[in-house]
Amino acid sequence: MIEISAFSGVPQQIRGLVRDLRVRWALEEAGLSYVARLLPLGDQKKPEYRALQPFGQVPIFQEDGLVLFESGAIVLYIGERCESLLPRETGARARAVQWVVASLNSIEPFVMNFAMLDADNPARAGAEEFLRRRLAELSESLGDKPYLDGQRFTAGDLLMSTVLCILRGTNIVSSDPRLSAYVQRCTARPGYLRALDAQMGDFH
Amino acid sequence: MIEISAFSGVPQQIRGLVRDLRVRWALEEAGLSYVARLLPLGDQKKPEYRALQPFGQVPIFQEDGLVLFESGAIVLYIGERCESLLPRETGARARAVQWVVASLNSIEPFVMNFAMLDADNPARAGAEEFLRRRLAELSESLGDKPYLDGQRFTAGDLLMSTVLCILRGTNIVSSDPRLSAYVQRCTARPGYLRALDAQMGDFH
Repeated sequence: MIEISAFSGVPQQIRGLVRDLRVRWALEEAGLSYVARLLPLGDQKKPEYRALQPFGQVPIFQEDGLVLFESGAIVLYIGERCESLLPRETGARARAVQWVVASLNSIEPFVMNFAMLDADNPARAGAEEFLRRRLAELSESLGDKPYLDGQRFTAGDLLMSTVLCILRGTNIVSSDPRLSAYVQRCTARPGYLRALDAQMGDFH
Repeated sequence: MIEISAFSGVPQQIRGLVRDLRVRWALEEAGLSYVARLLPLGDQKKPEYRALQPFGQVPIFQEDGLVLFESGAIVLYIGERCESLLPRETGARARAVQWVVASLNSIEPFVMNFAMLDADNPARAGAEEFLRRRLAELSESLGDKPYLDGQRFTAGDLLMSTVLCILRGTNIVSSDPRLSAYVQRCTARPGYLRALDAQMGDFH
């Protein structure tokens, strides 16, 4: 049985954003069942958890003795069992991985740099300007396609849409009709909705 | 023939750090030959290049009509042809991917946040403190093992060591004997040295 770690409770503003959502969503796309091992917020920093996750972060994925962390890597691992996440054809597969990495290395760091700054922080304007420029490039690359690599949803879209969801409290994505429709398209998938329900349902 | 994009010249302080080095290194590990398409610095922002790389970054990888960007994704793609980068055994392979993602999403963003701030920036002390804490966790996880997953060098070590090299002008890695020895161990590999020579040799 697959087990993932998740929180039993977090502040309202990050509900639906904790990284186990990405893994739950991938498991739903793959049709794999799982159980969540729930941690009170703070317990991820304890030594027994850190022995499995050096940075004290959620989620961990465990199955038959295999222990993995980093939600992006876990999604890729699950993708090996789900052709809609990682296509079999070599080129399409490589481009799906490319968009996973782009989400995690070229978009998320700048989303987080902006999101972590309070409204009165003098660095916020610069972080927002950089982020808006980067997202305009992403929007241009998406163009009129429904998904980043064309007609098919892949693991790259799963990662990218969850990264863009971090900006839900701002107008940065919602003011771009293409990106906004893209996030809505991805998060309308039944697998996303089931994953979100499961994460929300696990919060007490 | 494999073609990668790289710069024909960059300032001294980033020579040996431009991301095509990661791809050159992976190609050396895999024993695959390639040619570099050299761009003057700035040309990566032109429309014809952006049509292939939406964020205007180096490198791009091209082979038989396949075009890929994101150095981490390209290293994973090359890893499919190189067992020392991506082991065949399922668990070892998943953990190698995990360390690739950890390098790109849990370490590099904080390395870059620190490295991009001038010495007199008031945010620098906080960025350094966060980074030192994160790297202490990495060092603890490495422990006495030669490589992140144990006895074998993988794509995860290729990525992590090149990320840590970004800090070469500071004492942040060099003051940690374990991480410092780890970076030296990785970058003593003949494949790294050939890749570094090739990048440096392409600067005019």
